[in-house]
Amino acid sequence: MDGDRAGDYRILHEADLRDYLAGLPDIAALLGGEPASWAITEVGDGNLNLVFIVKGARDGIAVKQALPYVRLVGESWPLPLSRAHYEYLALSRQAQLAPGLVPAVLHHHDALALTVMELLEPHIIMRKGLVGARQYPRFVDDVTTFMAMTLFFTSDLAVAAAAKKEGIAAFAGNHALCKITEDLIFTDPYRIAEQNRWTAPYLDGLAAQLRDDMELHVAVCRLKLKFMASPEALLHGDLHTGSIMVTDNETRVIDPEFAFYGPMGFDVGAVLANLLMAYFASAGHERAAGERSAFEGWVLETVDKVWNEFARKFLDLWRAEATGDAYPPSLFTGDRGAARLEAERQAYMQRLFTDAVGFAAAKIIRRIFGLAHNIDFELIEDPRRRAISEARAVRLARKMMVDAPTFRTIADVTGAARNLRDWQPELSG
Amino acid sequence: MDGDRAGDYRILHEADLRDYLAGLPDIAALLGGEPASWAITEVGDGNLNLVFIVKGARDGIAVKQALPYVRLVGESWPLPLSRAHYEYLALSRQAQLAPGLVPAVLHHHDALALTVMELLEPHIIMRKGLVGARQYPRFVDDVTTFMAMTLFFTSDLAVAAAAKKEGIAAFAGNHALCKITEDLIFTDPYRIAEQNRWTAPYLDGLAAQLRDDMELHVAVCRLKLKFMASPEALLHGDLHTGSIMVTDNETRVIDPEFAFYGPMGFDVGAVLANLLMAYFASAGHERAAGERSAFEGWVLETVDKVWNEFARKFLDLWRAEATGDAYPPSLFTGDRGAARLEAERQAYMQRLFTDAVGFAAAKIIRRIFGLAHNIDFELIEDPRRRAISEARAVRLARKMMVDAPTFRTIADVTGAARNLRDWQPELSG
Repeated sequence: MDGDRAGDYRILHEADLRDYLAGLPDIAALLGGEPASWAITEVGDGNLNLVFIVKGARDGIAVKQALPYVRLVGESWPLPLSRAHYEYLALSRQAQLAPGLVPAVLHHHDALALTVMELLEPHIIMRKGLVGARQYPRFVDDVTTFMAMTLFFTSDLAVAAAAKKEGIAAFAGNHALCKITEDLIFTDPYRIAEQNRWTAPYLDGLAAQLRDDMELHVAVCRLKLKFMASPEALLHGDLHTGSIMVTDNETRVIDPEFAFYGPMGFDVGAVLANLLMAYFASAGHERAAGERSAFEGWVLETVDKVWNEFARKFLDLWRAEATGDAYPPSLFTGDRGAARLEAERQAYMQRLFTDAVGFAAAKIIRRIFGLAHNIDFELIEDPRRRAISEARAVRLARKMMVDAPTFRTIADVTGAARNLRDWQPELSG
Repeated sequence: MDGDRAGDYRILHEADLRDYLAGLPDIAALLGGEPASWAITEVGDGNLNLVFIVKGARDGIAVKQALPYVRLVGESWPLPLSRAHYEYLALSRQAQLAPGLVPAVLHHHDALALTVMELLEPHIIMRKGLVGARQYPRFVDDVTTFMAMTLFFTSDLAVAAAAKKEGIAAFAGNHALCKITEDLIFTDPYRIAEQNRWTAPYLDGLAAQLRDDMELHVAVCRLKLKFMASPEALLHGDLHTGSIMVTDNETRVIDPEFAFYGPMGFDVGAVLANLLMAYFASAGHERAAGERSAFEGWVLETVDKVWNEFARKFLDLWRAEATGDAYPPSLFTGDRGAARLEAERQAYMQRLFTDAVGFAAAKIIRRIFGLAHNIDFELIEDPRRRAISEARAVRLARKMMVDAPTFRTIADVTGAARNLRDWQPELSG
């Protein structure tokens, strides 16, 4: 699907949705009972779409419908419905590659930009749990499996070049969603932009510093260029802790509507960044000194493990399933060849790590100075305490972006974060 | 066009071609006279296609028709006709961006995979002129304009991200031609492959060394990965001196059927590599010591100028026409911003230069150990002298590929070439 079939599209309000679902025998049977008895609630708290939970006598479902504009902003900011098509395409691919780690799709209608999925219950958005200092024991294993499988198996290491180019082309039309990232993450936070906001007045000075920091601007422009022109693998494209639903025993990655072929470090960096923000926000949420220290220790340990486990799984896949056109095994025969290829695998992961460090930094800075903030920081009620947490995160992010290669291991990142735990920034105002 | 419309395709032999052209009023008028009087000659000496020259009473034309297989190898190696579509697409874009530097297209028929172009006369294939020690005074200015204009104006520096992604998708279907490059340039010369050949027995030892050189294999794999997954700009994709037709006063770049979005250094490196091969071949063509020294001096001076002029023109375009989404001017305001952006432009060109050095090396090695050789070396009749010229080129290429960043300027490359002018390699056999 290249364009939107606007003629067939209509926004499904509750009554329309009830009729529509009643007309789908499998869905109606799954819900159970009379359509009139189904409980329909609009719960969308994301930035872009309508999300309904529908509960019948037997079971429940989630229904997501794209709006032709950005929900967070309104009709003044149109956004193509085709994103629902790309989300469906990505969900289908991810379900093949990482079974059980994305919601099952029960129905999709391209023209309505509507997807019916299994209801994730009692899962909650991970970010909410992190604000409440909850620890998720399955998270590391699940999210690293998700990333290793979806990134490796859509990369040139696993896919023949022709199929890879077809994949890139299949997602090329999702450029309006990419443009949101290009603008809101890689550009606007670093210049005067109407939609920017930050914890004023305390971060006014820091915001001005960022707008004046040319080393940072060069670094973010290099990341932006990499985002635009390095189709290494099929990315989720928005892999923050608000796109992950969890219980103690399960993890589901949702909302891949930003999916496209881009640099792997962008997805990996998104996970690292959002955990680091949970860490820096934690001090702002504590009511008694040290009450969240176990959680904070768990978060940093999780950051370490996310990278290390991802790298381990990705490397294992590369050693076992290198069916792509990159690094052909026939060029690395014999013991010397095997040893040299293994050294190159390690070097490749080091380059990917440097990318992830830089992209993580960009994800942090945009949440503090750009349009879309996150509840990790937003729910810190006292703006001064919020600003202190945010300033600590920005201090680390600035270094991660400008000096990414100096972070050789993930322990360098978490060590730097730990050192900033109680750092007292100078605030404005 | 995604696939081939094989149903409408037929190979046009001379009589069919005469009828076909007679049915095109504009073409028939341009040729002039009775169709029966037109002189039709098949002149294709490339590796892939049929090429006819048709001369009428008034004027002449060139007609290129793709065959459904690789001409050099035969029907056992099928190749999609769609390459004619991509060639036409690329020619059209190049004609807009670099007017006067590509042949004018007079007619195109997608299903027949056939393109009618202006007859380039008295132009000759530049490579033939170089073998004859001819100098081309227009070449530097024209080829650097061609590269600067086509690469800059299809890059993220000039094009909005959405249009760029559409461009990438428009050429993604040309993957069979990319695959030829991936196999024949970046893979086969470094392993045992049936189609490889070299000047035996003299280069047997060197061929074995290359197959055993793991540093070189890692370097070529990095280049291959960059070729596959770095859509920086719309490349010509096969920009050697056999794809350039020249007179003293004119330059035309032909045959962009390998066009796709790839790394800019691949096109730039192709030009540098083919000039360097002309330089190293020259010693093999001389009948008296020093008789081609003026030519050789001109070739190396041309290598220097190709890079320096290309870089100058590309940078000038960037300073004046940066309408793309990369490096937004709004992030580099004021004197400090302007200075920092200018420094980054220089750093960007340095990265591009390193890429070009590496890709140039790959282009040299494939012409000496792979399937497709070139007449620069092939026309050296004495195989021993040929092998000596080739071994000198390979010695430089090996260093350029493995140690690309140590070549800081183009003078480092031409200086190294000059130092190898009379180097005596150890030959096998």
